[in-house]
Amino acid sequence: MPVDPRFFEPLGATTLGALAKLTGAVFSGDAGAQIDSVAPANSAGRGDICFHEGAAAKTAASISPVAGACFVSEAAAVGLPEGVAALIVSRPRWAHIQAGHVLHKLREWDDVGGDPDVHETAILAPGAVVCAGAAIGEHAQIGPNAVIGPGVQIGCHTKVGANASIRCALIGDFVTILSGARIGESGFGVTGGPEGAENIPQWGRVIIQDHVLVGANTCIDRGAFADTMIGERTKIDNLCQIGHNVILGQNVLIASFGGISGSVTVGDSVQMGGRVGIADHVDIGEGATLAASTGIFRNIPRDEAWGGTPAKPMRQYLREVAWLKKQVAPKKKRSE
Amino acid sequence: MPVDPRFFEPLGATTLGALAKLTGAVFSGDAGAQIDSVAPANSAGRGDICFHEGAAAKTAASISPVAGACFVSEAAAVGLPEGVAALIVSRPRWAHIQAGHVLHKLREWDDVGGDPDVHETAILAPGAVVCAGAAIGEHAQIGPNAVIGPGVQIGCHTKVGANASIRCALIGDFVTILSGARIGESGFGVTGGPEGAENIPQWGRVIIQDHVLVGANTCIDRGAFADTMIGERTKIDNLCQIGHNVILGQNVLIASFGGISGSVTVGDSVQMGGRVGIADHVDIGEGATLAASTGIFRNIPRDEAWGGTPAKPMRQYLREVAWLKKQVAPKKKRSE
Amino acid sequence: MPVDPRFFEPLGATTLGALAKLTGAVFSGDAGAQIDSVAPANSAGRGDICFHEGAAAKTAASISPVAGACFVSEAAAVGLPEGVAALIVSRPRWAHIQAGHVLHKLREWDDVGGDPDVHETAILAPGAVVCAGAAIGEHAQIGPNAVIGPGVQIGCHTKVGANASIRCALIGDFVTILSGARIGESGFGVTGGPEGAENIPQWGRVIIQDHVLVGANTCIDRGAFADTMIGERTKIDNLCQIGHNVILGQNVLIASFGGISGSVTVGDSVQMGGRVGIADHVDIGEGATLAASTGIFRNIPRDEAWGGTPAKPMRQYLREVAWLKKQVAPKKKRSE
Repeated sequence: MPVDPRFFEPLGATTLGALAKLTGAVFSGDAGAQIDSVAPANSAGRGDICFHEGAAAKTAASISPVAGACFVSEAAAVGLPEGVAALIVSRPRWAHIQAGHVLHKLREWDDVGGDPDVHETAILAPGAVVCAGAAIGEHAQIGPNAVIGPGVQIGCHTKVGANASIRCALIGDFVTILSGARIGESGFGVTGGPEGAENIPQWGRVIIQDHVLVGANTCIDRGAFADTMIGERTKIDNLCQIGHNVILGQNVLIASFGGISGSVTVGDSVQMGGRVGIADHVDIGEGATLAASTGIFRNIPRDEAWGGTPAKPMRQYLREVAWLKKQVAPKKKRSE
Repeated sequence: MPVDPRFFEPLGATTLGALAKLTGAVFSGDAGAQIDSVAPANSAGRGDICFHEGAAAKTAASISPVAGACFVSEAAAVGLPEGVAALIVSRPRWAHIQAGHVLHKLREWDDVGGDPDVHETAILAPGAVVCAGAAIGEHAQIGPNAVIGPGVQIGCHTKVGANASIRCALIGDFVTILSGARIGESGFGVTGGPEGAENIPQWGRVIIQDHVLVGANTCIDRGAFADTMIGERTKIDNLCQIGHNVILGQNVLIASFGGISGSVTVGDSVQMGGRVGIADHVDIGEGATLAASTGIFRNIPRDEAWGGTPAKPMRQYLREVAWLKKQVAPKKKRSE
Repeated sequence: MPVDPRFFEPLGATTLGALAKLTGAVFSGDAGAQIDSVAPANSAGRGDICFHEGAAAKTAASISPVAGACFVSEAAAVGLPEGVAALIVSRPRWAHIQAGHVLHKLREWDDVGGDPDVHETAILAPGAVVCAGAAIGEHAQIGPNAVIGPGVQIGCHTKVGANASIRCALIGDFVTILSGARIGESGFGVTGGPEGAENIPQWGRVIIQDHVLVGANTCIDRGAFADTMIGERTKIDNLCQIGHNVILGQNVLIASFGGISGSVTVGDSVQMGGRVGIADHVDIGEGATLAASTGIFRNIPRDEAWGGTPAKPMRQYLREVAWLKKQVAPKKKRSE
């Protein structure tokens, strides 16, 4: 998936030689080979540069065979698919961040890429700001002091609440976004650089399908490279956090304080009580039910009910709660 | 309680015949009978239409004997009080939603119902938006880029922070609403419609009494029909969620991340540590103390201290924690 | 630490006699002695008035020997250091609040203390509000509808997101503040007054060092007297709550829904998973790792990994989880 130029300004192609120089990489291939974009390892194409951190054994399986080049450690470089140029560095992710800043730039709120395209039936309330290149569909309503970032697309009959902000996002029809929601901010990615903790730039988007509800003050982060996706008719309560690259199916219900970490996938019709937390890269099967306050660190099979922290099947959870209570009850009660 | 016309525009009366046609209901009474408003089953009056989902056995007890009409399943219709017209449908709640949209319309931010009434001593900071029909009391202060929705009443000496938004609400005197708070957004109500998950419209209000504190980025949802009420001198920290129809007493303290689900009642002087969650329809007795991180799924008696998830009396909770620790301690420690 | 006049307008000195009259204090010293400021007991100087609540035995150790005066109960007054004037009252904290309101006033958003100082290379997006006395550094960017309160200092290359608000704060260079963040709101301090719960005014600031990340809709409260401090390169995810007087070291990572209560100190390079809660006045040692959903009520030694609620060493936590599961597993499984 290429970096979307509506949200990230392309700064022009560079060469492997220039990137090697920039990052201090050891490189012995064609210094003039052109690179247009950063990309993730598994989907990088010819003009893309990706990175790989981890064991050499996993290198071959993780990296697209058509990637243009890859930042990689010396040890892991042997596993690179043939034809993928190796730029050998001690901090591959860090080098990749530097390459990203040379190739792309997040369009800032004041970006001057052209007037927004607001349909004549759409309503912009007082104080609403619609940035360059954005489009607002028929009968859409943008609330007072809400902000629609550069290049954002808002579908028909969609309502954006007061003081909400949206960037790097494509929003469908009949979507309801309540006041103070934050859509498309950068996901929480941090890595160690030479001077300490560094933000990992996030080059993806948020896609919200039709009839979705996003609650007040809820945050949905844009993807790192791939997109964060919210399926049709999914309903998200207030004060929830949806991390980068999360994929929510259709008709999913997430009650208040739901926290979905990065790269989680949630099947259709999953229901979550309040304050459910899901660790990153977990899959929640279609139709599963997660009780309030559940903390999930593993995949959940479809149609099952789970509870507790760490989560267990609901029956097991209730059994544990009851058993523990009985063990610890005051003596005289137990002897009754 | 009628739907408040300051916040929801009355669209004019309709007839039972028209509503039956709209919803596909089976109906054999006076097709010309006039209906003015939707209402909840337990308080519906002559011109109101309500709905009932659930067993026939409970029908009689749940429905106001003076309700004009009721959407109800065929099985449950037999229990309707005499004089309440039955509109028989397979999805009563869904039909009621359709009726609501015919009878009322949430006043949008750009509603043009008349100029706001701002007292000459009140201060509107730059970028503050005050919508039609709103009233701002003596010495009140509205922060920069804050939004006061149509018809909202703000009392004397009340301060609204930057970027906060308020709609469908009546706010007392000497109230402090910190920046980014969201008051009066629609509560989280979802039901199954013919095409999947559907938002349940929320026709109620938020009432905030004098000297209340609402923390930064905290959300207080408006009622579904009845009101969400926050009692005098109650203090709510940042990033809390107060659901629809919640009733908080006076001098209640709720620390950060408190989550109070729909229709919970909390007695006077209850104190909650951080991240307390309360399931819907639970009652918390006056003077109860809830430890940080408590998850409550049942009623709590007055003046008691509870902790843990699911919550138990504080003593029992601490006993369980200590006992479990002892059981599982490494062998050599136990033999000491 | 004196109350910073950039954020709190000094209302002019008063006398011990006037303060005694205002608060109904019993006082037998020099009624004309001048008081300029409120201050905390441990750092009050000559012109400051502090308060002490608690046992007489602790009085001597808690109160600065150079404090000008102290509100104190009759019982505890005997322990006051020589030279500190005693104003004897039944509610010392309450009296101190009254004194604060006589001496200082939070500068409101509309404060007219002089034009802001915006560097010519800084960018203010549409709708951004920069209040009197604020300063915006080179190449800083203030997002649409963001609000920079009176006297706030924003460093070079710092980016403030859309609809964010900042008050009573000094922000370093290369800081990223995402949309909807709330910095410098009053911390959650409540005390009992004669009419019920009363807000405790907060006279401190927020200091944010270089390269910090503050996530979307995250709240960082200003100090009660001392400052809330966020160390260099610390990264805070969305929807976190950082209480008053918290001190975070450098390179600290806090994932979403992290809740750090008042006066907590966190050492350098501490890492917290999602939804970690820390009770007030706790110290977290440098390099500690706190698992997702951990609830911490005690100090954590450096470099240790802890989990669970209440928190225990990670190993003990995992052992408890596994043991409990085994005890309660269905019989046939145990006999396998």
